[in-house]
Amino acid sequence: MDQDTKKPITYGTRNLADEDLTQAVLATFENSSSERFQKVMQSLVRHLHAFVKDVELTEEEWFKGIDYLTRIGHITDDQRQEFVLLSDILGISMLVIDINNKQSPEATASTVFGPFFVEGSPRFANGDDIANGASGEPCFMHGHVLSIAGEPLPDARIEIWQADDNGFYDVQSQESSQVYGRGHLYADEAGNYSFWSVRPEAYPIPEDGPVGELLEAANRSPMRPAHVHFMIKVPGYKTLITHVFKEGDQYLDSDAVFGVRSSLITSFDRHEPGIAPDGKKMDVPFYTMHYDFFLMPIKE
Amino acid sequence: MDQDTKKPITYGTRNLADEDLTQAVLATFENSSSERFQKVMQSLVRHLHAFVKDVELTEEEWFKGIDYLTRIGHITDDQRQEFVLLSDILGISMLVIDINNKQSPEATASTVFGPFFVEGSPRFANGDDIANGASGEPCFMHGHVLSIAGEPLPDARIEIWQADDNGFYDVQSQESSQVYGRGHLYADEAGNYSFWSVRPEAYPIPEDGPVGELLEAANRSPMRPAHVHFMIKVPGYKTLITHVFKEGDQYLDSDAVFGVRSSLITSFDRHEPGIAPDGKKMDVPFYTMHYDFFLMPIKE
Repeated sequence: MDQDTKKPITYGTRNLADEDLTQAVLATFENSSSERFQKVMQSLVRHLHAFVKDVELTEEEWFKGIDYLTRIGHITDDQRQEFVLLSDILGISMLVIDINNKQSPEATASTVFGPFFVEGSPRFANGDDIANGASGEPCFMHGHVLSIAGEPLPDARIEIWQADDNGFYDVQSQESSQVYGRGHLYADEAGNYSFWSVRPEAYPIPEDGPVGELLEAANRSPMRPAHVHFMIKVPGYKTLITHVFKEGDQYLDSDAVFGVRSSLITSFDRHEPGIAPDGKKMDVPFYTMHYDFFLMPIKE
Repeated sequence: MDQDTKKPITYGTRNLADEDLTQAVLATFENSSSERFQKVMQSLVRHLHAFVKDVELTEEEWFKGIDYLTRIGHITDDQRQEFVLLSDILGISMLVIDINNKQSPEATASTVFGPFFVEGSPRFANGDDIANGASGEPCFMHGHVLSIAGEPLPDARIEIWQADDNGFYDVQSQESSQVYGRGHLYADEAGNYSFWSVRPEAYPIPEDGPVGELLEAANRSPMRPAHVHFMIKVPGYKTLITHVFKEGDQYLDSDAVFGVRSSLITSFDRHEPGIAPDGKKMDVPFYTMHYDFFLMPIKE
């Protein structure tokens, strides 16, 4: 039964080792239904095999890796995305974003999607208060949605999600299932958007799961600078997934997920009680944040 | 706020792109609690970043990848291990096994663990029938567990799991939760083992999950040649995880998981009704399989 070991290896799968094994796996993707799928999978196989050889991964480490991925899979649900978090802390998310947004320096920079987006957020009217009980100081956020040529983009769909001033998103609450600091609304005909919410605070990414273990083993900080998530969709334009960061935050240069761009930082200005920019009378101190978003048209 | 973009990047995490981003992620592992962890993680980051750059992974592909891993996590439970299956079809499992078993050519070859091992299998006595209702023709399997020097290894713990002649493991059954074709027993004082079960048949790896999608996109065969899984544990010896393959199987050179070693193939011999090697009187035709396992002592 040993004859075949003497034949040159083409597509056979028996008695393979080292580079022959890698080549055989690559060959199994030669008949892929799409060229792109083939290219991506062959590159992935090449790099994963190189990793295994590079570190001479032990069998025990392989079992640990399988267990680690399994636990990430089991902690992930429709309100928590630990695979995204892992991609984020390994800089993979930011690398993908960077690669895909090099051609549009005039557009607002993208940053990480993060693990806390939830489908089906509540609908608000432009100008509404989306805090919905989120703990924190009131903050009026406003600006424009524009094309990179400076034209207003009416009816832009703006999705917002953020942590409260304890550093928690609504979906992290153990006690309550109340949606807070999360919603979507549409800019007006001149591309103006505004809403009330709370001033965001810096927070640690979730440390109670597999990603937390990894950060601890690396002695890495879990902190992220204060920010508000935005996802802005306008037909004919590239969807913008980004944050607005709070100027002066102490973690702007040590973001656990490598997401900060200087162009995404702006001031959150404090005001004494009085009349807010939207005419609302405020009995307590409040903040304002102004930020304009510039979207890139999709090339035909 | 743009001052820092002009400074050389050391450990900062703002405005990073390309190689600077990769270097910053690598730097976050410099204070790891273990040198080995640091080496493995830094190599993994280097190779995953190289993969993303190599194929210029799109944001849509990244989302598809996250969704793919999430679905693998959700189909994986205590009876199905889709991450192992993915590792298997990408040749990663076999690569790890090969790297870790180069120094022991006298020992029985290892092969993939596979996704169908289950903790807590039933205990049998040496010589028992472990089929327990598995569909298939009766087969008497026997041999020795020996050191690489040829010394018998008494009381070796032998774990066995196999598919029935429809190609299904017990845990794949939708209708029944009966354990079949699975169990553990101990070799006798002379290192002899024997048990009855059914003759294995070739089968497709599970195609109803994410791994099946991948095989379909690659137009790859899901077939594995007929085999019986063995895991043999003896104190002081390296645990052996392997299969015994059926001689003559048509898939020996196209195993979907690259697991075949010629040294692991043996004949399953057919016999007319009569007296079996253990003295049992058989009223129907039956098979016999003989295989000796050689284990490597653990170096001090």
